[in-house]
Amino acid sequence: MIDTSMKDLVLGIDIGGTNLRGALVGRDGVLSRRSDTKSGAEAGISSVIENLLEFISEYEKYGPSAISVGIPGIVDSKRGILTQAPNINDVDNFPFVKTLNESLGYREIPLYIDNDANCAAVGEFWAGAGKGCESMIMMTLGTGLGGGLIFKGRLWRGSDGMAGEIGHMVVDPGGPLCSCGSRGCLESFVSSKALFRIVNENDILNPFFNTLSYDDVPYELMKRAREGDTEAIAIWEDFGTYLGIGITSLVNLLNVEMIVVGGGISNSWDLFIKKAREELTSRGLKAPAERVEIRKALLGDDAGIAGSALIAFRRLKGDAEF
Amino acid sequence: MIDTSMKDLVLGIDIGGTNLRGALVGRDGVLSRRSDTKSGAEAGISSVIENLLEFISEYEKYGPSAISVGIPGIVDSKRGILTQAPNINDVDNFPFVKTLNESLGYREIPLYIDNDANCAAVGEFWAGAGKGCESMIMMTLGTGLGGGLIFKGRLWRGSDGMAGEIGHMVVDPGGPLCSCGSRGCLESFVSSKALFRIVNENDILNPFFNTLSYDDVPYELMKRAREGDTEAIAIWEDFGTYLGIGITSLVNLLNVEMIVVGGGISNSWDLFIKKAREELTSRGLKAPAERVEIRKALLGDDAGIAGSALIAFRRLKGDAEF
Repeated sequence: MIDTSMKDLVLGIDIGGTNLRGALVGRDGVLSRRSDTKSGAEAGISSVIENLLEFISEYEKYGPSAISVGIPGIVDSKRGILTQAPNINDVDNFPFVKTLNESLGYREIPLYIDNDANCAAVGEFWAGAGKGCESMIMMTLGTGLGGGLIFKGRLWRGSDGMAGEIGHMVVDPGGPLCSCGSRGCLESFVSSKALFRIVNENDILNPFFNTLSYDDVPYELMKRAREGDTEAIAIWEDFGTYLGIGITSLVNLLNVEMIVVGGGISNSWDLFIKKAREELTSRGLKAPAERVEIRKALLGDDAGIAGSALIAFRRLKGDAEF
Repeated sequence: MIDTSMKDLVLGIDIGGTNLRGALVGRDGVLSRRSDTKSGAEAGISSVIENLLEFISEYEKYGPSAISVGIPGIVDSKRGILTQAPNINDVDNFPFVKTLNESLGYREIPLYIDNDANCAAVGEFWAGAGKGCESMIMMTLGTGLGGGLIFKGRLWRGSDGMAGEIGHMVVDPGGPLCSCGSRGCLESFVSSKALFRIVNENDILNPFFNTLSYDDVPYELMKRAREGDTEAIAIWEDFGTYLGIGITSLVNLLNVEMIVVGGGISNSWDLFIKKAREELTSRGLKAPAERVEIRKALLGDDAGIAGSALIAFRRLKGDAEF
């Protein structure tokens, strides 16, 4: 009895710039035995692999039928290679799956890797806000603005695994300088980095602004806006307006059923979503704008874990293209 | 012998606002017996159907194995319904295939319809500039700016057949008013309508500007730029810059192998493409921008005819989803 149920569990793992999280995931998308540790990303890829192997060893006793890992970077999921990873040192076409296999290989367990934003999109699509739809765009509002694209129930990873860089659509060609080198990318208006810039430029959140990191700023602005601070409220409204401009471009171009908005900043949903919807209503082409549903993500940090597991379940079924 | 070869011919048809064009198309994408007539679009859908039936009757003797029609509008290709068509009067969920079938039905010939921009994209993908690639975006620069999206060798029509409205991505939220009601859509910088606006605002092409239609303007500007007129040259350079901004957003978001630029304005290719490429190089994310190829469309008006035929060939093979 136990063996049979074990066959239906995949170890899903989400590697981040700071944390490494994972859980056993069933075919229903339900997580069990969730745990986390440090990813060691700043110390480089060999440190990440070391932490990952230790993490995996804790789950061996549950006999997962596959291990599937979401990684922040450009991933060649077919060949199991981590092409680039700005947040992990020493990565240049790193043979991720081969390296793991050499340590785990005798256990003959299938290993899969994919981009973390793609995993989060698949997680929400399978077991979260996007459940039941066929085409969906996930927007992840964090330090930057990332995303994942699902058409006809399948991920579109791009021809080199780089699709979904929603944050680098140009919305204002002469706008603020973006970390990518361009100007006026959507990310330079809709991300923690953007809020940090706006707060800095407008001399808000003093006297203690200098002590805040990128990712503290949305939290402080949320707190102040909820207390009625008009400056903070206006910043969230502008944030919503730009989010709505980005959503308009996506909906006009891609005519998807659903946009799911996740990431840490989605905690301020009530402060920005009204403006975003207004912008879509006034700017979007009528039919696709009326039909699209905009929803808040449901799974939080679990989306990437669930999504990496779903990718494994599909691969185990022989669907190499999912 | 003749019968066998006939089985491999589809009648591909492209209905436009003014003309109705068609040809027999082989599996190799080669057109034969091409001809055209007036579409009668301004007189309404029943006039279009009448002209179409007459056009088809001329090809009956060649025994095409299917008839496939590209139409400017929102098409539900699965159900054979023309949902909306701004350029054809009296269209509101018009049962296109059913209506044609009732006139042609006893001949038992398969009928297919699709959106004209999608057909043009498929045509270039199959037998034109995109031959051999797996993911491609077609941009059609005409009166407006339309497009078609191909991922993993398949059209992405959107969940309601409305995907590909590249012209209505927002590139400058406070920019010129667009015919869709929004501001600063890509189409308001990169189309005949845009060039008409720019020429008008800057008091160029006088004294005879008032006699020009939207679609005369690109031709006049092309002629003048080729003669060395610095104003006209600068207009084409700005046009290229905005085209490059649009391409940057598409490439960052979708990481396709190829962008194919067609439509009447692509005749001015040499006048705008350098600036477009420069913009992509300076703004785009490095890897997807370096890998994408930007090519001029090869098939001109034949793209839609060829593409509609390929869709038929795929459907005849039982690929209902192509």
